[in-house]
Amino acid sequence: MSANTSPDLKLPPAARPGQPLSAIDTPSLVLDLDVFERNLDHMQQAAQQAGIQLRPHAKAHKCPGIALAQVARGAVGICCQKVSEALPFVQAGIRDIHISNEIAGPAKAALLAELARHARLSVCVDDARQVEALAKATAEAGSRIGVFVEIDVGQGRCGVADAPAALRLVEQIAAHAQLELRGLQAYHGGIQHVRGWQARREAARLAAARTAAVLKALNAAGVRCETVTGGGSGSVEFDLGSGVYTEIQPGSYIFMDRGYGSNEATGSLRFEHSLFIATTVMSVAAGSRVVVDAGLKSMSVDSGLPWIWQHGAISKTLDYIAANDEHGIIVPVPETATQALPGLDTQVLLVPGHCDPTLNLYDEIVGVRAGKVECVWPVSARGHSR
Amino acid sequence: MSANTSPDLKLPPAARPGQPLSAIDTPSLVLDLDVFERNLDHMQQAAQQAGIQLRPHAKAHKCPGIALAQVARGAVGICCQKVSEALPFVQAGIRDIHISNEIAGPAKAALLAELARHARLSVCVDDARQVEALAKATAEAGSRIGVFVEIDVGQGRCGVADAPAALRLVEQIAAHAQLELRGLQAYHGGIQHVRGWQARREAARLAAARTAAVLKALNAAGVRCETVTGGGSGSVEFDLGSGVYTEIQPGSYIFMDRGYGSNEATGSLRFEHSLFIATTVMSVAAGSRVVVDAGLKSMSVDSGLPWIWQHGAISKTLDYIAANDEHGIIVPVPETATQALPGLDTQVLLVPGHCDPTLNLYDEIVGVRAGKVECVWPVSARGHSR
Repeated sequence: MSANTSPDLKLPPAARPGQPLSAIDTPSLVLDLDVFERNLDHMQQAAQQAGIQLRPHAKAHKCPGIALAQVARGAVGICCQKVSEALPFVQAGIRDIHISNEIAGPAKAALLAELARHARLSVCVDDARQVEALAKATAEAGSRIGVFVEIDVGQGRCGVADAPAALRLVEQIAAHAQLELRGLQAYHGGIQHVRGWQARREAARLAAARTAAVLKALNAAGVRCETVTGGGSGSVEFDLGSGVYTEIQPGSYIFMDRGYGSNEATGSLRFEHSLFIATTVMSVAAGSRVVVDAGLKSMSVDSGLPWIWQHGAISKTLDYIAANDEHGIIVPVPETATQALPGLDTQVLLVPGHCDPTLNLYDEIVGVRAGKVECVWPVSARGHSR
Repeated sequence: MSANTSPDLKLPPAARPGQPLSAIDTPSLVLDLDVFERNLDHMQQAAQQAGIQLRPHAKAHKCPGIALAQVARGAVGICCQKVSEALPFVQAGIRDIHISNEIAGPAKAALLAELARHARLSVCVDDARQVEALAKATAEAGSRIGVFVEIDVGQGRCGVADAPAALRLVEQIAAHAQLELRGLQAYHGGIQHVRGWQARREAARLAAARTAAVLKALNAAGVRCETVTGGGSGSVEFDLGSGVYTEIQPGSYIFMDRGYGSNEATGSLRFEHSLFIATTVMSVAAGSRVVVDAGLKSMSVDSGLPWIWQHGAISKTLDYIAANDEHGIIVPVPETATQALPGLDTQVLLVPGHCDPTLNLYDEIVGVRAGKVECVWPVSARGHSR
């Protein structure tokens, strides 16, 4: 044992380009690059065919490598949900970022105004005090930002309730030369996971109708909204043809987690599972179940436990039934025998229940093509929740 | 807008020593240092009075600053749950670390054997192949490690089922000079959150009885177990007097999350809430509810939503009812009026539902005393899940 009190130790990388997938250290987040690129292309083509701008949401991936791939395919820019989240994307050269959220406190307004000196930035408001804070911060930084008035289209979360409230904010924004009204944000998170296709279509139709009503009132008052932004991976197939949105904000379509995979999809806009958690069987002592090394610190279970992925499909023989902090429990599905259980040291792939907060647990995404590691991308905005 | 494609931008710190708590940027993880130190002292004294070694679990905090405070008070060392988790603690000068878990794959065994060149390390086994992997890795690194045979005391997760299986592993360990049998690990995670005090005591009694039976059989076979390690924050008041454990592994007692706060506590070993998520009201547009800036990326909700903390106690007038990715919804409890709702830009403190995976979301803990920031500690093992 060395007497050195601060040894120069480094965590070895989980994966190196050229390695087989089966050799990477676990738990690790794995992206099937072929599938991922098909998902990218599919959404970009759908948006282009509809004549709608695609501004993918970076809150799903927090990874500049992915944002650059989206912009390279024609995305107009990205969305971020927090100001601090935008910073690594500005550093990576993304030049058009919409903060699709209200912000609170002077620190966030100051950072936003500073970022706006390096890129085209916009943000949402639903309160007069937010407009004043933005005006003050941009005046101090000598920068300009775009502002969207967020309207509540049924979720009851953020956004003003009606056209008169929106109009008051529009007028207040117009009083500050450094604030530029871009238009409306109309997003309904609750629609995205309505399971039935018909029910989801109807919910999206209602949200679009509410948006259209506010737009009409604003138009009547002489206010022109250049951009109407909103929509997510669950509603985008309806939003594209709604006649209301000029821009869509889907994020999870690139990965397709269990949550989105559980939506009934009867339309043509379908995406495939590209994101997996690679985990390893660490104990088989219990006999009737095995324990893997990925638990609550390697996945978010807020939207359900992960699926097990075998032979390119959701497993019909194995179930991940419980996540402890650092352990996952896998059992055979009731109809199958325990001999289906993977052995000690075997790698198992999981489809995460909810991609956004799961990405937020990892510093890296391991990109894999045809079973081999091709790249390791930093998740640079991981933990950037301020 | 600058043409610079990689501007030199830095995220400002969330908090600076000397600032009032109310001025820190949110979401941030806040530790009330006075309460935290009382919790530290209380557990240390209880262990010393019982003549039992305290080896606190670092999986709860992942923070070398906290581990050093525990060791300074008399803790014999710490537990980690993963090999990679131990690395920053070895770097920080912690010299005795038990990995309270089995490990899978050659990368982890190699890192463990390397760490063992700098500190006293031990690990659990429940399978002969794990012993062989440890023997190989330590032989290659030229290091020695301690080995605990884990026994299943009722959880059905890791650990061998009975004394004969334990004895076979003991004999296998003895065949390798670089592996040193330290004793048994007997931990039952399921007991920790049994709500009723009597029921929890009975569950702990059963686990201790199973452990005693295995110990008796090993003794009869001439095997001496220097250390029997186990116990968590929920069972430790019973484990200390069980006559079985020589060492306890509690982690969450330093923080007391909502999960542990929901246990019925009738014994003398009580701990106080010291850990909070500071969040800010970012939207009041909905009127009957407010939206705060801490959601699923700022807390783990696997064990329930957070409590709201007001005036040094759990709020009786406000409820945090839903966590979205980056939003939390707060409403008045049904009996109270909406005028109880905090206003825009107001800071709100939350008691997290489950501390361990919540800590794993933050890079820093903001230490506060008497309402002022005193220190900012790095959560150096955040994300170290391999």
